[in-house]
Amino acid sequence: MNRPVITLTTDFGSGPFSGIMKGVILGICPEATLVDICHTVPPQDIRAGALVVEQALSVFTPGTVHLCVVDPGVGTSRKAVAVSAMGMNFIGPDNGLLSAPILSDPKAKVWSLDNRQYFREPVSATFHGRDIFAPCAAHVAMGTDPAKLGKPLADPRLLDMTKAKLTGDKIRGKIISVDSFGNLTSNIQQGALRQLGPLAELEITLHLPDEAMVIKGVNRVYGQAAPGKNLAVIDSMGRLELSVNQGSMSRRLAGRGVDPGGLTISVKRQGD
Amino acid sequence: MNRPVITLTTDFGSGPFSGIMKGVILGICPEATLVDICHTVPPQDIRAGALVVEQALSVFTPGTVHLCVVDPGVGTSRKAVAVSAMGMNFIGPDNGLLSAPILSDPKAKVWSLDNRQYFREPVSATFHGRDIFAPCAAHVAMGTDPAKLGKPLADPRLLDMTKAKLTGDKIRGKIISVDSFGNLTSNIQQGALRQLGPLAELEITLHLPDEAMVIKGVNRVYGQAAPGKNLAVIDSMGRLELSVNQGSMSRRLAGRGVDPGGLTISVKRQGD
Amino acid sequence: MNRPVITLTTDFGSGPFSGIMKGVILGICPEATLVDICHTVPPQDIRAGALVVEQALSVFTPGTVHLCVVDPGVGTSRKAVAVSAMGMNFIGPDNGLLSAPILSDPKAKVWSLDNRQYFREPVSATFHGRDIFAPCAAHVAMGTDPAKLGKPLADPRLLDMTKAKLTGDKIRGKIISVDSFGNLTSNIQQGALRQLGPLAELEITLHLPDEAMVIKGVNRVYGQAAPGKNLAVIDSMGRLELSVNQGSMSRRLAGRGVDPGGLTISVKRQGD
Repeated sequence: MNRPVITLTTDFGSGPFSGIMKGVILGICPEATLVDICHTVPPQDIRAGALVVEQALSVFTPGTVHLCVVDPGVGTSRKAVAVSAMGMNFIGPDNGLLSAPILSDPKAKVWSLDNRQYFREPVSATFHGRDIFAPCAAHVAMGTDPAKLGKPLADPRLLDMTKAKLTGDKIRGKIISVDSFGNLTSNIQQGALRQLGPLAELEITLHLPDEAMVIKGVNRVYGQAAPGKNLAVIDSMGRLELSVNQGSMSRRLAGRGVDPGGLTISVKRQGD
Repeated sequence: MNRPVITLTTDFGSGPFSGIMKGVILGICPEATLVDICHTVPPQDIRAGALVVEQALSVFTPGTVHLCVVDPGVGTSRKAVAVSAMGMNFIGPDNGLLSAPILSDPKAKVWSLDNRQYFREPVSATFHGRDIFAPCAAHVAMGTDPAKLGKPLADPRLLDMTKAKLTGDKIRGKIISVDSFGNLTSNIQQGALRQLGPLAELEITLHLPDEAMVIKGVNRVYGQAAPGKNLAVIDSMGRLELSVNQGSMSRRLAGRGVDPGGLTISVKRQGD
Repeated sequence: MNRPVITLTTDFGSGPFSGIMKGVILGICPEATLVDICHTVPPQDIRAGALVVEQALSVFTPGTVHLCVVDPGVGTSRKAVAVSAMGMNFIGPDNGLLSAPILSDPKAKVWSLDNRQYFREPVSATFHGRDIFAPCAAHVAMGTDPAKLGKPLADPRLLDMTKAKLTGDKIRGKIISVDSFGNLTSNIQQGALRQLGPLAELEITLHLPDEAMVIKGVNRVYGQAAPGKNLAVIDSMGRLELSVNQGSMSRRLAGRGVDPGGLTISVKRQGD
């Protein structure tokens, strides 16, 4: 049997918290292969974390356990959950962070983590990653049926993970995340764009508070634009992305005092 | 037998130095499970590193080897040491970084790393992590008795890791570290607080240079305070922590020109 | 047999991209030991990435697969390559990033990655790390002969990795990288310095735009200089490095508005 894979996605930053969770995991599941997906989800930004979890769905193999902690409500009455979906298991808070696997698999099952025998005692009020999520993830990786961790949960919290749709001759979407290169990711998928027309013939408008930034055509690659020029491209998840070739779009917008999060984008055919 | 676990705690930041140490380790101990605890100890801040090592003590299992490098004196006459304590082994400079395991275990043993047959030659003057600490850690993980690495060291360097104590009807402590969320950690333990009275009835004063910040009550969780409000809470290590709900206390203080390191905190019962 | 080691060197920063590549790798080579060397190569800085790859050459053991992605030309006509050199294999873009292994081993072999059966389909235009480099690296780690990945490439792109040389009674070199402590690394090797004279008797001049910074002697260790003082030292790769004891040289230069990259250094004997 292959060694179990446990991934970690958190907003813990570069401090010791993720390493502490790994110590707990290895105490229970010594043969685990531990994979850091991302510890720099913006602090307490559940939606950004949910998008990272969504990205991981397509590349990890069945049997993987995903430990996900972006948890502004730690210690309040929010539930902790295990999700079984797409042949993988997910452990985290019940706050929408695990929306992507739940929404992607009609057979997804969710349990609340009630069974304290799988916790690390004493359970602190502020670090459920160490005391609840890490040990539960390690037990599942060791083969414990997630149904043993607690009771079925019928109504897990879910974020709206919907994609922008074509309406008439236009797509209206928004910026949903910014990557470490300063590229802006939208909720507009390649498929919708292609319904509208050939990518090179589209016109993308980013609606800033006081002006509109217009980009003609969706490039195939960054390098099609001159260095420093604004461009649109399809990102690795098949989503429309706005960039600056060899530069940073988010820094460019910051220079105008604009925070890109949530800005509206519209796309139409050029000339329409 | 389980594969040996080697953890890494350094102030090397995000550059290649930790990966280079891992290459050395895997050349000696190919089956090691490598766990990054933290590479963002503030550069050359031995006390902050010692606090990270202290946190790791409670979660890793017997047999773990902890490789710890925060080493402003690299290449000077400071010694390098192996520490055997609490069923684990620790490798690092003799500068106080390993105070927690030495002070936590009355049976702790310390050796200076004198035996060059366990070093990587040639030994550079600036990167003992690669040339001394990593190979010694890997040999210990492979089963080499740390006593073979050198001579017993009777007087290792130790930091004051003491906790604040209750004196009369007051506890006086200080800020000893700042985490990646901007929370301030103190050397005041939960146990001392409870001696003073119910947590909700305490009054915490943070003594800034020109004013005092007063917080009423120690919360059970962050979410008990309104967003943006100052609060006190018990952190995951059982220590009193000062925070801003959904914000950053260190950024708040920076806005007033105050560096939180070393600030005095006093705690008493409200009304006393 | 030992488990295969795959290292990762990228400019992806702290986001999820490196974790996504690891998911692809583990799907093909579940027993891989994954080692992050560095994900903070300055974005699209091929030379800085090549220097990290060069550092890894001396510590990893034969059989290691190095996955290297600093790839400003992703999606353009630049080739992707596999390099076999020094008993190790390297996978990355053909843009000079892999210059060190190619130049270090006269028997190095290079192949372009043409054989799509080893790719992850569909291949995106923007994330060849996930779709081409990671799966090819994983297949090589599983034992696939890199010659099966594509055709021999006779003229891979190479950077000038040459070291500064002694000319007459002087060495003229330059700053080629800045580490996370703010130390400046030059292309001047210890060997050339020793040809010039005893290290303590040398005089190092860093040529800033409007002035010259002169340092007398090359220290054996940082601690030989007073805190806050400029110093020269031999770094862990045997190169001349300029530092501030317990400080940051790059921050010092930034305070004068100077970017250290590419600055000229000259070295002579004191008094000459």
